[in-house]
Amino acid sequence: MSKGLPKRSEDYSLWYNELVKRADLAENSAVRGCMVIKPYGYSIWEKMQAELDRMFKETGHTNAYFPLFIPKSYLSKEASHVEGFAKECAVVTHYRLKNDENGKGVVVDPEAKLEEELIVRPTSETVIWSTYKNWIQSYRDLPLLVNQWANVVRWEMRTRLFLRTAEFLWQEGHTAHATKEEAEAETLQMMQVYAQFAEEFMALPVVRGRKTENERFAGAEDTLCIEAMMQDGKALQAGTSHFLGQNFAKAFDVKFATKEGGLDFVWGTSWGVSTRLMGALIMAHSDDNGLVLPPKLAPMQVVIVPIYRGDDEFKAVSAKANELVSALRKAGVSVKFDDRDTHKPGWKFAEYELKGVPLRIALGPRDLENGTVEIARRDTLTKESFALDSMPIEEKVKTLLDEIQTSIYQKANDFKESHTTEVNSWEEFQELLESKGGFLSAHWDGTSETEDKIKELTKATIRCIPLDQKEESGKCVLTGKPSKGRVLFAKAY
Amino acid sequence: MSKGLPKRSEDYSLWYNELVKRADLAENSAVRGCMVIKPYGYSIWEKMQAELDRMFKETGHTNAYFPLFIPKSYLSKEASHVEGFAKECAVVTHYRLKNDENGKGVVVDPEAKLEEELIVRPTSETVIWSTYKNWIQSYRDLPLLVNQWANVVRWEMRTRLFLRTAEFLWQEGHTAHATKEEAEAETLQMMQVYAQFAEEFMALPVVRGRKTENERFAGAEDTLCIEAMMQDGKALQAGTSHFLGQNFAKAFDVKFATKEGGLDFVWGTSWGVSTRLMGALIMAHSDDNGLVLPPKLAPMQVVIVPIYRGDDEFKAVSAKANELVSALRKAGVSVKFDDRDTHKPGWKFAEYELKGVPLRIALGPRDLENGTVEIARRDTLTKESFALDSMPIEEKVKTLLDEIQTSIYQKANDFKESHTTEVNSWEEFQELLESKGGFLSAHWDGTSETEDKIKELTKATIRCIPLDQKEESGKCVLTGKPSKGRVLFAKAY
Repeated sequence: MSKGLPKRSEDYSLWYNELVKRADLAENSAVRGCMVIKPYGYSIWEKMQAELDRMFKETGHTNAYFPLFIPKSYLSKEASHVEGFAKECAVVTHYRLKNDENGKGVVVDPEAKLEEELIVRPTSETVIWSTYKNWIQSYRDLPLLVNQWANVVRWEMRTRLFLRTAEFLWQEGHTAHATKEEAEAETLQMMQVYAQFAEEFMALPVVRGRKTENERFAGAEDTLCIEAMMQDGKALQAGTSHFLGQNFAKAFDVKFATKEGGLDFVWGTSWGVSTRLMGALIMAHSDDNGLVLPPKLAPMQVVIVPIYRGDDEFKAVSAKANELVSALRKAGVSVKFDDRDTHKPGWKFAEYELKGVPLRIALGPRDLENGTVEIARRDTLTKESFALDSMPIEEKVKTLLDEIQTSIYQKANDFKESHTTEVNSWEEFQELLESKGGFLSAHWDGTSETEDKIKELTKATIRCIPLDQKEESGKCVLTGKPSKGRVLFAKAY
Repeated sequence: MSKGLPKRSEDYSLWYNELVKRADLAENSAVRGCMVIKPYGYSIWEKMQAELDRMFKETGHTNAYFPLFIPKSYLSKEASHVEGFAKECAVVTHYRLKNDENGKGVVVDPEAKLEEELIVRPTSETVIWSTYKNWIQSYRDLPLLVNQWANVVRWEMRTRLFLRTAEFLWQEGHTAHATKEEAEAETLQMMQVYAQFAEEFMALPVVRGRKTENERFAGAEDTLCIEAMMQDGKALQAGTSHFLGQNFAKAFDVKFATKEGGLDFVWGTSWGVSTRLMGALIMAHSDDNGLVLPPKLAPMQVVIVPIYRGDDEFKAVSAKANELVSALRKAGVSVKFDDRDTHKPGWKFAEYELKGVPLRIALGPRDLENGTVEIARRDTLTKESFALDSMPIEEKVKTLLDEIQTSIYQKANDFKESHTTEVNSWEEFQELLESKGGFLSAHWDGTSETEDKIKELTKATIRCIPLDQKEESGKCVLTGKPSKGRVLFAKAY
């Protein structure tokens, strides 16, 4: 490992970029705005996928796959949808190359232009609802509960690894229902699934809320969301769940025969989380030494580093280490024994700190004599000497992993709580936003104009109207007009 | 279910197309040549993915993700690679849309043309080797064993669901090694992994072989493959593993410091299987009643259908069925109890036959009296009455599932064996190819000219030179020139 990371307090943004690269999570590719997700980063994403996929299946959803390409005309069928997405689409206009005359390269064959240009999907509502038209005839075909794991493309101008990339990986759920109530319940349920995943697995506390009209998904009647707080006081939207009403059913003429013998448009939802969650995970917990990963998502929960001089010591230490590895693996703990002789222990310590491995066990000749190992926690950077005869190693490790999972959640939650402030005047709002950031809980008059104005003046947006918002009469923090409850403002990623 | 499937003997091709659609595996989408993989089809693909992914990881590989888009110039860097892929690429030339003047649709903004056009990946060697250049400096960075699960696009003109589609899902492994021997061993190992997967999980016997120069991957020095035989006597290439030599390392200047202090180009491999395997699975085992699935890949291994009249019988039958469900689930068998009252037992029987559920258990009042259930095997269409007190149901079911897995493999293997024929004259070759098909094991003079000529005359290609080919002097079946061993010809998908 080369020199240390930039410090968060000095340049949070640079710290993040460097951490993502040095911890082998991702890097920029030759195509502007597209990233390469490196093996270590991808293995974290795989763990996220596995848990989410299990949760989707437990709530009755199945996976399917829909085409990457969308006919351009589809995009225009839902009026607000096209307005939201048209400007950031990649367009396929040709479908063939030929060698140039000198045979030294390839050129586009001008005669091979597509009859109808194709959009690389920025999201799949249009292509999916055009398919659902054939799948849904009767109430017996409903509900239709489908999810897709896929790549999507939005041609963003300013990109950052994981947080905003031209291509990203995600899942998108698309469900169809016979009644408005059922679709609304599904929208709420999937937001709760996301919240539970964030809190339980990512150790990331979130606010459950509803977007204002301004921030709603293009084509939705209601957007629920989970919002998290990063260590620099900026918010990050970590997942959204949309109630689509009958908008896409109407755009694609998807009707069903009701139980009562009538014919009605289908009610829809869509919901998604993406590789953006990787950005949230990194920014929420990590420190100036590198990544801090929640044990439930760490690809490697424990690393064992041998301390030795010469072959005899190595053999003795290795024998003991392999015993520990067996015991831990048997107990379902993922563990690596790093017995490489090309790197010194100090180098390895720094490397696994950078990579965020939750527990490090060091083991040398003196430990063998004493019947101990040294266990270091990544989250607190504390060490303890553990007597191997005091309890089985797997029990000790599992207890510590649970403690870490709880502890980093608690730390992030304390941060979020201490960075959620009720503000009651415009001066306070501006001052606090600059000095401390975080969520500002403030009254708002309910108009898009005021929301726009506040964004223009401060760059803060309404992250959400919390679902547990209390009724409380007050005055809008900017205009002084009447308000019925507080909403959360923040600068956001 | 509507009327029966077309018969294989009458129109194999139509039978396949109809089966894919009626069994809810896949359908064509609005974009020419792109398919929608429906939930039931996708759940089979997921099972394939899970097993393959496990096998890749057990052989030391990790997953990563590389960009969908490839700069056009990359494709030309490896001369034979560009020749193989240029003609079937989708090209992104624009990246923005805008609303037209009437606001009624979207048009491409002519000013938003990309500076360098992008190719939608047909395969990722170029983008991956351009990345490996930064990942590999020293022998310590090798081997690099990476796999990617992704979608790729090849603009095929004639498409068929699963077998040949413009967009398909696949995995592509891309490895880098310090020595030629190691890269060759990897190429062989991954071909063996594919063969083992096909035989053990898909119940699909395959020939392990080597492609001739004509049929080699564009950019490879050697291509190993597995070839399967379908019920219509046509061969299907089910997986390929390529030894790339130093071709891509040279094209992208990927060198490494050797252990001995020198500098050398890296050796590479790539290997892949795709949703085409779904086509192979369907065509190898299924019959005129529908799908036949190997139990190891069936999303639902057992279905229980209740037979009853009136509520009392339903309650009694359901209670017993739920007992069976619990016992089976506990034993790791996937089982569905279809208690829908909207469909009659006969309809359900036909439906699950069409869907290829390996075992069907029917259960009525008389069974309750007698302590029996009726168990029907999908592969043989045979039924037996099973006395529940003779052995635990889960034991019986697991034994039957194992028997089915073995039996359909055996059946497919018998078919393959009986459709592999040694031929020694050109008349015999032509006659057999038309009358029976299958693999024709024949001598060949080793030239591309003869291979081309045979293809032109008969549409048969050399599927592979089997790895277990015996040395045997003979005369080329077409030209009479000397040959050292037999190769396998067939018409192929």
